[in-house]
Amino acid sequence: MKMTDSDFAFWMGDVQARMEAALARLLPAASLVPARLHEAMRYAVLEGGKRVRPMLCFAAGELTGAAQGRLEIAAAAVELVHAYSLVHDDLPCMDDDVLRRGKRTVHVEYDEATALLVGDALHSLAFQLLAEHRLAEDAALQLEMVRTLAQAAGSRGMAGGQQIDLAATGKQLSVAELEFMHIHKTGSLIGAAVKLGALCGGECPRELERFAHRIGLAFQVVDDVLDAEASTATLGKTAGKDSKQGKPTYVSAMSLADARALAEELRGEAQAALQGLGARARRLGELADFIVLRKF
Amino acid sequence: MKMTDSDFAFWMGDVQARMEAALARLLPAASLVPARLHEAMRYAVLEGGKRVRPMLCFAAGELTGAAQGRLEIAAAAVELVHAYSLVHDDLPCMDDDVLRRGKRTVHVEYDEATALLVGDALHSLAFQLLAEHRLAEDAALQLEMVRTLAQAAGSRGMAGGQQIDLAATGKQLSVAELEFMHIHKTGSLIGAAVKLGALCGGECPRELERFAHRIGLAFQVVDDVLDAEASTATLGKTAGKDSKQGKPTYVSAMSLADARALAEELRGEAQAALQGLGARARRLGELADFIVLRKF
Repeated sequence: MKMTDSDFAFWMGDVQARMEAALARLLPAASLVPARLHEAMRYAVLEGGKRVRPMLCFAAGELTGAAQGRLEIAAAAVELVHAYSLVHDDLPCMDDDVLRRGKRTVHVEYDEATALLVGDALHSLAFQLLAEHRLAEDAALQLEMVRTLAQAAGSRGMAGGQQIDLAATGKQLSVAELEFMHIHKTGSLIGAAVKLGALCGGECPRELERFAHRIGLAFQVVDDVLDAEASTATLGKTAGKDSKQGKPTYVSAMSLADARALAEELRGEAQAALQGLGARARRLGELADFIVLRKF
Repeated sequence: MKMTDSDFAFWMGDVQARMEAALARLLPAASLVPARLHEAMRYAVLEGGKRVRPMLCFAAGELTGAAQGRLEIAAAAVELVHAYSLVHDDLPCMDDDVLRRGKRTVHVEYDEATALLVGDALHSLAFQLLAEHRLAEDAALQLEMVRTLAQAAGSRGMAGGQQIDLAATGKQLSVAELEFMHIHKTGSLIGAAVKLGALCGGECPRELERFAHRIGLAFQVVDDVLDAEASTATLGKTAGKDSKQGKPTYVSAMSLADARALAEELRGEAQAALQGLGARARRLGELADFIVLRKF
């Protein structure tokens, strides 16, 4: 059964609204001591972002029949890790950015020390959520979620990807080297979002690993294409910034047209990975389309 | 049975050596990509520190008959969280320190961006360790370890304590306010070390919570006393720094003599908390003495 675009748009809006409510509920209240930290944590996470990782988590959970309540927690944990990485990434010693999701970055709105602690506290909170709510029938499966997220965030995943990114600034990388960087920097957390969503309903089918790998790369390729094309107003973050900072991008490593073609190829491979999974993989397929065809 | 001091010294040396070996084994090899990050992670953690938290973890494990192999993992997780907090705390936007454990701080030896990522990656690795090794018969108990460490590290624990510390700089706090700050900043992780150690052997006796609370505070009071008394060479970190930076300390809130008396009082209360726990609590009692009577 092929659904209409408006059905998918409705689903996306529903997941985004659910996530906003879940995150608002799961983050410590701004009135709790230390209030400045909690206020800044909420500022960093709420009212921002497309929530792509939560959407992947929910779509993967649909495949395994996971309960929505569990998916909210798992998706929140992944989104908190993503949010922490953005806060740290925006700091002066990293990308030194002043605009994120259309708002002033945390260290500009508050101060650098608070931004550092906001990132650290969001990072801890992600694991606290995975441990203090019941997300699986079997506690061992839930430990597997903790392991998956920790590994994806760590030195062999996202943080490692950031380090590779630092070292790559000012250099021209090959497409293979770019791919290696982004598999760590973006791909690992996207893979964790998919896996955690599936685990909320039981086992994670093997095919999802290949799907997540392709979609993680496609996400970054499209980001580079949009960054090269778009204006700051549309993106909600400083546009054309990566290439200005001398960061290698798919657009600089190939051409704009080739990068667009690569994104399309990866979308095809992601869809192919879903072939054997039946009708319940529909949302994942729609999301793959959305991620590659988005204009922002 | 009262043991001699030399027996305790031998035990301490044994735990320290075990921990050095365990941490060296559990940290990613410096040859793994990204090598600079892994090298810096090892620099931040290895060959440094008294390993007070691991010792508390081992001593609590002795109380519940925990296996040494499990204690090594749990203690490593706590120590990695401690090490990450030191790396971030030393950054220019926080305490801006150049010396730690007798070595140049990570951002001085490497650079700020790497130090930021080192902290982040150690933080993730701590949770990865707690999830990927078998630390309890029951996976639910192991999830409780994850929850305990995450909560102790987060905005209502250590990171929150750092934020309170930031806000307190340049202010005179009351003893009650100082206590509130340190219960978060130092006490929560010390409490987690004790609890995780005990959980490796089964249940955590309630008395340990009171013990950990008193010992966590005593640790900080003694730190302030030593900081006021000692030279940089003895401490292995910049001495007299807290008071110079306008940070409130127990010595500034009371007097040196009163701070010493408070440490002694807390030691007595910690020992009293162990009363009902029998002979297997011996190491915890010896550690309480060591923490209060140490000269460095």
